[in-house]
Amino acid sequence: MLSSEDNARLTRTGPDTPMGNVFRAYWMPALLSSELPEPDCPPKRVRLLGEDFVAFRDTRGRVGIVEPVCPHRGANLFFGRVADCGIRCSYHGWKFDHRGNCLEMPTLTPEAEERVRPRAAIRALEARESGDVIWAYMGDGPAPELPRFEFAEVPPEHRFVSKKLQQCNWAQACEGGLDTAHFSYLHAGIRDGERVGLHEVSPQRPRSDGENEPPSMARFRWLIEDGRPQFTVLEHDAGLLLCASREADGDQLYWRMTQFLMPNHSLAPGNFPDENNLGNTWVPIDDESCWIFCYCWNPDRPLTEKETERLSRGWGVFPEMEADYVPVRRRENDYLVDRTLQRESSFTGIRGISEQDQAIADSQGLIADRTRELLGQTDLGVVKFRNMVLAAASGVGEGKTPKGADCPDAYLVRSGDIVAPADTEILDVVESRFGTMSGVAL
Amino acid sequence: MLSSEDNARLTRTGPDTPMGNVFRAYWMPALLSSELPEPDCPPKRVRLLGEDFVAFRDTRGRVGIVEPVCPHRGANLFFGRVADCGIRCSYHGWKFDHRGNCLEMPTLTPEAEERVRPRAAIRALEARESGDVIWAYMGDGPAPELPRFEFAEVPPEHRFVSKKLQQCNWAQACEGGLDTAHFSYLHAGIRDGERVGLHEVSPQRPRSDGENEPPSMARFRWLIEDGRPQFTVLEHDAGLLLCASREADGDQLYWRMTQFLMPNHSLAPGNFPDENNLGNTWVPIDDESCWIFCYCWNPDRPLTEKETERLSRGWGVFPEMEADYVPVRRRENDYLVDRTLQRESSFTGIRGISEQDQAIADSQGLIADRTRELLGQTDLGVVKFRNMVLAAASGVGEGKTPKGADCPDAYLVRSGDIVAPADTEILDVVESRFGTMSGVAL
Amino acid sequence: MLSSEDNARLTRTGPDTPMGNVFRAYWMPALLSSELPEPDCPPKRVRLLGEDFVAFRDTRGRVGIVEPVCPHRGANLFFGRVADCGIRCSYHGWKFDHRGNCLEMPTLTPEAEERVRPRAAIRALEARESGDVIWAYMGDGPAPELPRFEFAEVPPEHRFVSKKLQQCNWAQACEGGLDTAHFSYLHAGIRDGERVGLHEVSPQRPRSDGENEPPSMARFRWLIEDGRPQFTVLEHDAGLLLCASREADGDQLYWRMTQFLMPNHSLAPGNFPDENNLGNTWVPIDDESCWIFCYCWNPDRPLTEKETERLSRGWGVFPEMEADYVPVRRRENDYLVDRTLQRESSFTGIRGISEQDQAIADSQGLIADRTRELLGQTDLGVVKFRNMVLAAASGVGEGKTPKGADCPDAYLVRSGDIVAPADTEILDVVESRFGTMSGVAL
Repeated sequence: MLSSEDNARLTRTGPDTPMGNVFRAYWMPALLSSELPEPDCPPKRVRLLGEDFVAFRDTRGRVGIVEPVCPHRGANLFFGRVADCGIRCSYHGWKFDHRGNCLEMPTLTPEAEERVRPRAAIRALEARESGDVIWAYMGDGPAPELPRFEFAEVPPEHRFVSKKLQQCNWAQACEGGLDTAHFSYLHAGIRDGERVGLHEVSPQRPRSDGENEPPSMARFRWLIEDGRPQFTVLEHDAGLLLCASREADGDQLYWRMTQFLMPNHSLAPGNFPDENNLGNTWVPIDDESCWIFCYCWNPDRPLTEKETERLSRGWGVFPEMEADYVPVRRRENDYLVDRTLQRESSFTGIRGISEQDQAIADSQGLIADRTRELLGQTDLGVVKFRNMVLAAASGVGEGKTPKGADCPDAYLVRSGDIVAPADTEILDVVESRFGTMSGVAL
Repeated sequence: MLSSEDNARLTRTGPDTPMGNVFRAYWMPALLSSELPEPDCPPKRVRLLGEDFVAFRDTRGRVGIVEPVCPHRGANLFFGRVADCGIRCSYHGWKFDHRGNCLEMPTLTPEAEERVRPRAAIRALEARESGDVIWAYMGDGPAPELPRFEFAEVPPEHRFVSKKLQQCNWAQACEGGLDTAHFSYLHAGIRDGERVGLHEVSPQRPRSDGENEPPSMARFRWLIEDGRPQFTVLEHDAGLLLCASREADGDQLYWRMTQFLMPNHSLAPGNFPDENNLGNTWVPIDDESCWIFCYCWNPDRPLTEKETERLSRGWGVFPEMEADYVPVRRRENDYLVDRTLQRESSFTGIRGISEQDQAIADSQGLIADRTRELLGQTDLGVVKFRNMVLAAASGVGEGKTPKGADCPDAYLVRSGDIVAPADTEILDVVESRFGTMSGVAL
Repeated sequence: MLSSEDNARLTRTGPDTPMGNVFRAYWMPALLSSELPEPDCPPKRVRLLGEDFVAFRDTRGRVGIVEPVCPHRGANLFFGRVADCGIRCSYHGWKFDHRGNCLEMPTLTPEAEERVRPRAAIRALEARESGDVIWAYMGDGPAPELPRFEFAEVPPEHRFVSKKLQQCNWAQACEGGLDTAHFSYLHAGIRDGERVGLHEVSPQRPRSDGENEPPSMARFRWLIEDGRPQFTVLEHDAGLLLCASREADGDQLYWRMTQFLMPNHSLAPGNFPDENNLGNTWVPIDDESCWIFCYCWNPDRPLTEKETERLSRGWGVFPEMEADYVPVRRRENDYLVDRTLQRESSFTGIRGISEQDQAIADSQGLIADRTRELLGQTDLGVVKFRNMVLAAASGVGEGKTPKGADCPDAYLVRSGDIVAPADTEILDVVESRFGTMSGVAL
């Protein structure tokens, strides 16, 4: 539960807001590289943290993310012409490079142009490409180094990267990503009126004896059987490792461990060591919508064609989408909730893990009201997340660099699952699952 | 004509408004029973007087109308699962019964649950079913008895009940229902450029001699011939009997008598003793739209299959509708006004009595401005209505029970038409038409 | 560049605003005559300077533009019945003539009607028809004489008049019309990556030698070759003659001369003496949209059938349109910008001169922000326009009649192009092109 003031502080990210200043101290995913597929391709509108830009890829392949307003008479550069290493305003031909420098002002005499040109530079974000993502830095000072994400460091064929529109504030959607407790309900399947497995992921009912059942199957039963995971939250240089244990069979615990990386990234649990990894970044478009960038990668092998195709069509945290990365199931169509499906085989009646997550986050309102909540032990990860980002919001006002912004290496961590004896010390659990990739000092 | 303050007072019905408090002292139609057709059917969103709820019918058939926000983390219960005598939040499985009690909190340990559960109850409206309508009581104190409407007391096969969306404030739409004067124009047909009968109801031109013409036909001519009905308004324990007389043939008057029942019901005129009765309730969704509940019933016989089918397809105060009780002809399509029809055979060019009423009320604005009006004798019913509800708004602030709220029997009244000699005393007219069912002390 | 205050002053035209008062001192195009094609045809909604009206043509062909609110109970007269030399409210039949006089109040007794009727008059704008346009005067005092536009004085078959919706403030759209500098870019065609001619108007690349090339072809090359026209602005009794010269071949200048006529008219350049004339008026609907009335006429001959058909389908300043004068290419569909077309043959990738103009004006925002601009010599016409209308806004507050409002004859002027030796005095250039039709004292 937050005060009304803290709720506003957590959720408001426009210019000159405390949380907005926190976001502006980090690199942000701004577009997919594939949205600007080739030199001199069509420019794209980009809205980030409530500010508008136009992005383009110049003749030499460099990306510019510039304010969209031509300084001459205010025409929008989105309608400009991208060519010859710049973008040229359609109104009177003023031309700008990817750093916002004004290159040509053809309505002026050469002498006037010489004099006025320095004042005609437009704001340009520093931009870099890494991991099939175009990253932007919106801060005033010099940009730090890019954070090191494993998905961005593996060979391109080892990963699949996309994004999706979420129609609510970033923070509640991010909280959903840090909340493994909801797997026992939100994503459950239904058989004969009882929760079973994960709908569409494990439609068969797991055997209840647990014998001869591999952990990769049994975990879906464990998720259902224990709706009350125990949280232990560990802090590290880039954020938090959220460790949640559920009762498994015998004297074992099933651990799901999520990374929260400042200020808006998560690496998801759900994967045993040989399985694909998943991650997300929640980037505010404005305070009532965000882009969720989605990463799937395998450190050890290329993704198969079948995996890539499945992710493209919609699977797991990747929704089925229409044009412009808008999910087919969304706020205005109630996520196509199917009440017959809900009665017979899905806890929600909404198809798709991503869609279930998006629906429940949207349902908390355009901006969730955290002044009326009843938080419990399973919400510990969410509480720690709020404390960490609100502390950053306080600190940034005093000139402090927020956590992780100057520690790019601290982002080279992993999340994932493990089954361990109940009496294992938490740090031993972490070490046996991740080795040096936990982020946590062992 | 009202002052700007009184106009606001009359039209604003949200929480903590004077008129809102008046409405909250009465039972309100909230949904049709058929919107929750069977136990554990899909829940419905309900918006009443600017407040949001989710309604569901539990396994035992009981109706719950509860606030839609889960007290755990604020997910919306509309996406919840209705089963096992409750509604369960899709996020983490908290479960509530139809009275808002929290039944299960599976994310908590049994001890924590025991401790926190009382604080996890959600607001639930008292709900009752009567006359194919689900009624809700939104007040703070104990609910009074349900008002006794005749349509609700006849056998179900004697009635047809539906609702329709009106895209403006409740009060101006209600005023249209109390205003029999407009029948001379709004609902008129046109032949050879002159007003005749009622368009589509009595397309044939009534004979002008009036001989051999039964009153059931002649009344359409009388409606046209006298656009200036004389009003006499009588008060009773539940509201007002609005008596309007027009010149009939010879030395006779044609009386149309409308019931206004506090705070937002009307029983319509237009029926002679052997004909079907019609009634309406205007329930604010918010201050710029309302549901109009529509009742047709016959005290003496079941409605015929033909009557029921006609009402379903759109007839009289029942419009032709699309999904979700939205009229086909509505604000955004200008009620499909047909200017050729208007020239040739309909005074408005809009098809349907209901649609004509809805169009003209909407046309007064989202909230009618009553600070510029020129009221006359034919507006007496409207004036008396305003005085009565504004008096209730004043009284409720002083703790007075508004008129009728504690007199359920006073709602067992009728409206209707009669032809009587011009020199008959008004109370004799009323008695000869209604006997004891006028509501008025005779 | 304007201060924030001056920008608001220039762009706000509602009741009781300085610029609104300026507009209300002049006749305004309100509708096309063809929108009310015959006596007793369907009425039309009209929104002018943020005020709502309903327009109708009565049985005798006279146009009424009246406030839409019936004084009885506030129903909207748009749903009224136009017949018998008046418009009758659909609710209770009150009837009004084209001057707003109340003619009948059938809900009142004759005595009451006699007494109340004078108070039941509704506001009616003075309306006149000229040049296929219905003009309205919104001022309080007596209307001046209609301005004398040549398009309105030629025989009807010499002209083509239409209108189009512009989805931004009037002033920035008008500024686009006064800005001949943008022809070098906004309307350019592209061949082999270089700007050429005007897209779709002169697709062939002009010969670069300029020999044997008539001025009617060479001008498209001159427009491209010189993006920096030199402005000389001359004032006259109705507004400004904006003279812009570009380098032509040899020692010649190519002059394009635009009329700005107070407060919102322009006569476009682009025509040599034997060619058709074009004019525009920007009429605020409200502060975020306007109607642009478009005039094409030939003083000397009827327009050909081919010309008229081309203008109807969309050509030059006449866009391709859907119903209700809404352009096919508009704000919400990004003007169907075609990025392949932009790469290969059109500077903007938007089809149509009108559409290019509309796109760039809209792109400046719903209301352009003029507090950040870098104006140069080519913006001199725009600056003079702003100064003139802002001076009128100041003057009208002191009771001064704004420029031109009382000089109807001063509007009988022309715009157009000429090629002249570089050393010709400006007044000689003007005289040789227009004779006495320049408006400027020679």
